[in-house]
Amino acid sequence: MRVLIFEEGKIREAEAPDPVPGEGAALVRVRMVGVCNTDLELLSGYYGFSGIAGHEVVGEVIRCDARPDLLGKRAVVAINQGCGAGDCPFCASGVPGHCPDRQVLGIVDWSGAFAEYLVAPVDNLHWVPDGLGDLAAVFAEPLAAVLHITEQAPLGPGTSVAVLGDGKLGMLAAWALSRFAPDLTLLGKHEERIALAASLGLSAMASSECLSAAGRGGRKFDVVVEATGSPLGLAQALEIVRPLGIIVMKTTTRHPVSTDLARLVVNEVRLVGSRCGDMGRALGFLAETGMDTRPFIEAVTPFSCHAAAFERAVRPGAGKVILEFP
Amino acid sequence: MRVLIFEEGKIREAEAPDPVPGEGAALVRVRMVGVCNTDLELLSGYYGFSGIAGHEVVGEVIRCDARPDLLGKRAVVAINQGCGAGDCPFCASGVPGHCPDRQVLGIVDWSGAFAEYLVAPVDNLHWVPDGLGDLAAVFAEPLAAVLHITEQAPLGPGTSVAVLGDGKLGMLAAWALSRFAPDLTLLGKHEERIALAASLGLSAMASSECLSAAGRGGRKFDVVVEATGSPLGLAQALEIVRPLGIIVMKTTTRHPVSTDLARLVVNEVRLVGSRCGDMGRALGFLAETGMDTRPFIEAVTPFSCHAAAFERAVRPGAGKVILEFP
Repeated sequence: MRVLIFEEGKIREAEAPDPVPGEGAALVRVRMVGVCNTDLELLSGYYGFSGIAGHEVVGEVIRCDARPDLLGKRAVVAINQGCGAGDCPFCASGVPGHCPDRQVLGIVDWSGAFAEYLVAPVDNLHWVPDGLGDLAAVFAEPLAAVLHITEQAPLGPGTSVAVLGDGKLGMLAAWALSRFAPDLTLLGKHEERIALAASLGLSAMASSECLSAAGRGGRKFDVVVEATGSPLGLAQALEIVRPLGIIVMKTTTRHPVSTDLARLVVNEVRLVGSRCGDMGRALGFLAETGMDTRPFIEAVTPFSCHAAAFERAVRPGAGKVILEFP
Repeated sequence: MRVLIFEEGKIREAEAPDPVPGEGAALVRVRMVGVCNTDLELLSGYYGFSGIAGHEVVGEVIRCDARPDLLGKRAVVAINQGCGAGDCPFCASGVPGHCPDRQVLGIVDWSGAFAEYLVAPVDNLHWVPDGLGDLAAVFAEPLAAVLHITEQAPLGPGTSVAVLGDGKLGMLAAWALSRFAPDLTLLGKHEERIALAASLGLSAMASSECLSAAGRGGRKFDVVVEATGSPLGLAQALEIVRPLGIIVMKTTTRHPVSTDLARLVVNEVRLVGSRCGDMGRALGFLAETGMDTRPFIEAVTPFSCHAAAFERAVRPGAGKVILEFP
């Protein structure tokens, strides 16, 4: 099969043997795979990664010896696979995403979706409803990560929320979370992204403007979703969150974050790390809201044009770039 | 009255006019006042402070025109005084400690307790029960800050807790919180402080030992109370907290904290800033537990010997230094 290999900051297309599913696993043909900021971080050396990345995937089962009834079904993949041991406190309590021996699709010890095929345990597959297109389903993974925030911070009509960052995740978060907390503002730094948010019916403004107003005693938010992807994001979030407020932190960066945390202590702010969510819930949300994902897409590119696709994905302010196997 | 003035990193004894209580306020004669790390930070320039610090105080009412019945009563002082305006969201909801226009005893716009007398609103006074000595009551403020942690993190028999830091606050936190969560370990760096903790019946060990074990896949804790007073404390807390665990952060330092926060995100750790607590609850705890505060005391020194007292208070690993007006 054709694969993309991340190696020393470069992407190389290569031929690799088709993977063979073991017991309880299926062979999945990749239909579409999104490029996530984590992929770009992996490419530049985060986790000392080398290999096949890619984890935002929609595919179809083409082999599953124990379950021939699954053949041809479209699925997205829950990216965490725990050790499954009965004495693992995380696996035993249904939280494989925190199992210390977990494999993570395209990130840790599990060959990813920048490839024609991948292998996944059947238990990790979530079936895409018939009415839901690939271009929606391919958002299930980042959308799950966004919806997870609703389990970490109380979001409701009375909550004021700022989403800090107008990148792929920030834009998606603003759209999805505004369904829970209508008093939500996207704070961005790219004019065209702020305009895009406004065209989606979202309240949006330049983060610099909001920060300088907050510095003069202006508006502060109950909840700030930090999705800047920058080591400076936390300091900004601390500027605009109210005392006793919550910052949900999505940014993972290789760079150490240097921040005046006295402000966090004095204002008794809660800072909550936030990672993956429930893919089934994300598929349900996509189906129920009829969410049009096209505004969030930068480009859909054939797999063979991956070089152009990644060039586009690294541009500041880029939307979601999707590779497809036609 | 005699006062201590913090000015440009130095302490100067001076004569100042006796303060005059306004409406709703009492004149309190200071009996004892503890030296807190915040005082030492203020002395070295935190908040650009100059003036009369001191906020861990037990005193007695010597004047209160509207309430002569209070004369002679012993009290501790709740250190936050909000603006009290009906449209202040924090004052209106009973959280004056987060009022943006608050005064804080000995810290912000409210002359402190390193003085013969201070003025306090009667509403900020908590009466010391007859059976409770000054040497216990003078711990009410830091103890309230410690007990506040029980409102921020679920502490119970099933919770494993590490208190990181063997200073004044760390030792007090370990003792008090172990009443809620018996599976508690004090992690220190001073041999004599670790020995003191052990002599109080606490589990205690060198933090370096625990950190290196955690790095090798060893024990991690459900809740870590970060009370190191050091900008390095947060990174250490992130090493020893389990995924989905809670770090309660007490350290306020003038220095920016540089940390790899990807770990917080990936492990979905919650970091909670923690400041002041309920002084009435602290007095109740002291009375109910019959807590012997003597092991936590480094020295009780007459006010006139303040220079020696502060010299002792800044020593690494020092316990609580208390100034008294005999």
